Amino acid sequence: MKNEESSGGVTAPAGFTAGGFRCGFKSSRAANDTALIVSRVPCTAAAVFTENLVKAEPVKLSAQHVAGGKAQAVIANAGNANACTGAQGRKNALRMARAVAGALSVPEEEVLVCSTGVIGQQFPETALETLEKNAAGFCAALSREGHTAAREAILTTDTVYKESEIRFELDGRTVTIGAMAKGSGMIHINMGTMLAFVTTDCAISAEMLDCALRESAACTYNCVSVDGDTSTNDTLLILANGLAGNTPVTEKNAAYGKFLQALTELNTVMARKIAADGEGATRLVECLVTGAASGEAARTLAKSVVSSNLVKAAFYGRDANWGRILCALGYSGVPFSPESVRVSFRSAAGEIAVCENGMPLPFDEQKASSVLDRPEVLVLVDLGGGNGTGRAWGCDLTCEYVRINGDYRS
Amino acid sequence: MKNEESSGGVTAPAGFTAGGFRCGFKSSRAANDTALIVSRVPCTAAAVFTENLVKAEPVKLSAQHVAGGKAQAVIANAGNANACTGAQGRKNALRMARAVAGALSVPEEEVLVCSTGVIGQQFPETALETLEKNAAGFCAALSREGHTAAREAILTTDTVYKESEIRFELDGRTVTIGAMAKGSGMIHINMGTMLAFVTTDCAISAEMLDCALRESAACTYNCVSVDGDTSTNDTLLILANGLAGNTPVTEKNAAYGKFLQALTELNTVMARKIAADGEGATRLVECLVTGAASGEAARTLAKSVVSSNLVKAAFYGRDANWGRILCALGYSGVPFSPESVRVSFRSAAGEIAVCENGMPLPFDEQKASSVLDRPEVLVLVDLGGGNGTGRAWGCDLTCEYVRINGDYRS
Repeated sequence: MKNEESSGGVTAPAGFTAGGFRCGFKSSRAANDTALIVSRVPCTAAAVFTENLVKAEPVKLSAQHVAGGKAQAVIANAGNANACTGAQGRKNALRMARAVAGALSVPEEEVLVCSTGVIGQQFPETALETLEKNAAGFCAALSREGHTAAREAILTTDTVYKESEIRFELDGRTVTIGAMAKGSGMIHINMGTMLAFVTTDCAISAEMLDCALRESAACTYNCVSVDGDTSTNDTLLILANGLAGNTPVTEKNAAYGKFLQALTELNTVMARKIAADGEGATRLVECLVTGAASGEAARTLAKSVVSSNLVKAAFYGRDANWGRILCALGYSGVPFSPESVRVSFRSAAGEIAVCENGMPLPFDEQKASSVLDRPEVLVLVDLGGGNGTGRAWGCDLTCEYVRINGDYRS
Repeated sequence: MKNEESSGGVTAPAGFTAGGFRCGFKSSRAANDTALIVSRVPCTAAAVFTENLVKAEPVKLSAQHVAGGKAQAVIANAGNANACTGAQGRKNALRMARAVAGALSVPEEEVLVCSTGVIGQQFPETALETLEKNAAGFCAALSREGHTAAREAILTTDTVYKESEIRFELDGRTVTIGAMAKGSGMIHINMGTMLAFVTTDCAISAEMLDCALRESAACTYNCVSVDGDTSTNDTLLILANGLAGNTPVTEKNAAYGKFLQALTELNTVMARKIAADGEGATRLVECLVTGAASGEAARTLAKSVVSSNLVKAAFYGRDANWGRILCALGYSGVPFSPESVRVSFRSAAGEIAVCENGMPLPFDEQKASSVLDRPEVLVLVDLGGGNGTGRAWGCDLTCEYVRINGDYRS
């Protein structure tokens, strides 16, 4: 597991503890497969779930639980998505919530449940029994340091853990927001098999928390694509326990603006981490569209570029095939003037312009290859129109992606 | 080039000749790169073009030319798409039309032009000069047998040529429709870098020809996906010269119905050929959705399944991962009841049911793998709802696709 600089993730805000455990949801590995995040006091809570019509059982359950705007604990398992599992799956998701609620003596409605892994298989009964038998022990073992075990217990085909935190001042108090996430394949616009857990000690109403989460997700998590598949299990949730001691944020005032800005900054970092660790990926591809009619139009165009299989394959080959970028812009559904488009590539190795006024610019192929041969590449698209700006993140398409997904279940 | 049973393709209908030649549009190969199809008498004509906002210059030109409903010749080149090439590209497309028009003594508006290949590069001037110098000779060399050279001259990354024909009776006359196509990558719903040329000796008005072409394309060419990229150059065109001698079809009567049925049958054969020869593909994946609210809903659902990278990668791995199929159905945007879905796989090796009522069925993984390990696999999805039925065609996602597209230009 590659190391990333972080000093707390979901336990960075005051009052949160976490841990990672093994119950047996993953069959083939000895690794931990169950994460817990708990606040020592009740929290306001909000969540964004998959837009897929086929929703996993834990998604349906957590959507009901979070509707009350309160939560105190989250349990997540990896290895089995508990999706397409019907009444038994529903019962099993509820068993997970109850096991934690019982151990913590909190109402089961204040426990949120997330699952990720294979679709269409029931949980092993032994895994649920292990959880039920050990829930009290797991909860007793939670700690500030436990974020390191938790961030790994939620992973599937991920090659690195994803964790970050951000701090800002509100009313002279330091407010912290922390996050951990998993997500590698089945990731597309409007989230993929992405589980993202955000914690904060900010005092903020459930309503404002929900607003901030949705507003922030629109230009961060919802702008990531690995493979174009929107999963059955996507969940982004946030718990706010108020322990920072700021004046509670209950309306869209300046404090809300600061919270939203920090949350968006944190979510951007996390979205980039997820894209960079796309299944089989060798590079992070960021597309920045400027000169669009609106921010939303710019984001739609940027998403179309990072979602294109042909663009993704070209990045794998370090091939400055900008024609595929114009092609992807063209089928995005957003109107623009192809004759005004400018495209360039930028990375740590420099910047190279390849298209102006929608037509080829002469460029040094070797220099272009060296610009593209970096772990992070930025595609700059200027439409020469309005003031709308938007970003999206993706990765290259590699043989390794095909290998991983050609036989994921075995 | 693999052989397929065919006895004439675009020259099967009376009065059509064809040929394949080398002008130098393809730089790296000695292969032919220019195809001509000519009718000895003027034809009614219709075409369907890419929905991409970024349209290649030959697409714009041919759209103008075909607007008159008449054409007598088609010229197509491979190796360079003449897309994103601006005013010079426009002039070059016109030079192609003029060279043929001059050689045949037909109005330039009755010559249709198609290009396929790399986007964003101007034609080599030498290729255009070669065409202009030799156009008369090329036209003199056209023949009924020339369909074999023409069907190969339009190919890019295709591994097989695609050609077929169909015959039916109208007013006691035999009417023939013939077709050839190319298309391997950048192929998605609403056509990809797909060029498809249909000829017929049916006597039919331009208006009815246009209706039949659009109606037929909706459930054939527009239901093929290789990689989700809708190209800048897609063109499906049809020329009808009336030499079969039937009573001209000028309204939606029984004769129109027979023509539409034959055209749809032919286009289905061609669509399957294109999907089966998807870049890097090892198998054709057909999805048949039944029990939907309407035919359109069924087609949208079927398209979502064959377009999913994860479904495609699973087919590459002969992995009966039906959860990904439910996932793809779920994000299609079409409402249905997940609890009523039944999924099975069928091939020459047998049929195996894997999901019923949206939940797992116990099945023999080894048998499932053997069913999937065939060149053609059918995914049967029954939604248990209405009477709507629809099909879509795709292929598996392989390392070879990534390799081909990682460095297409070099």
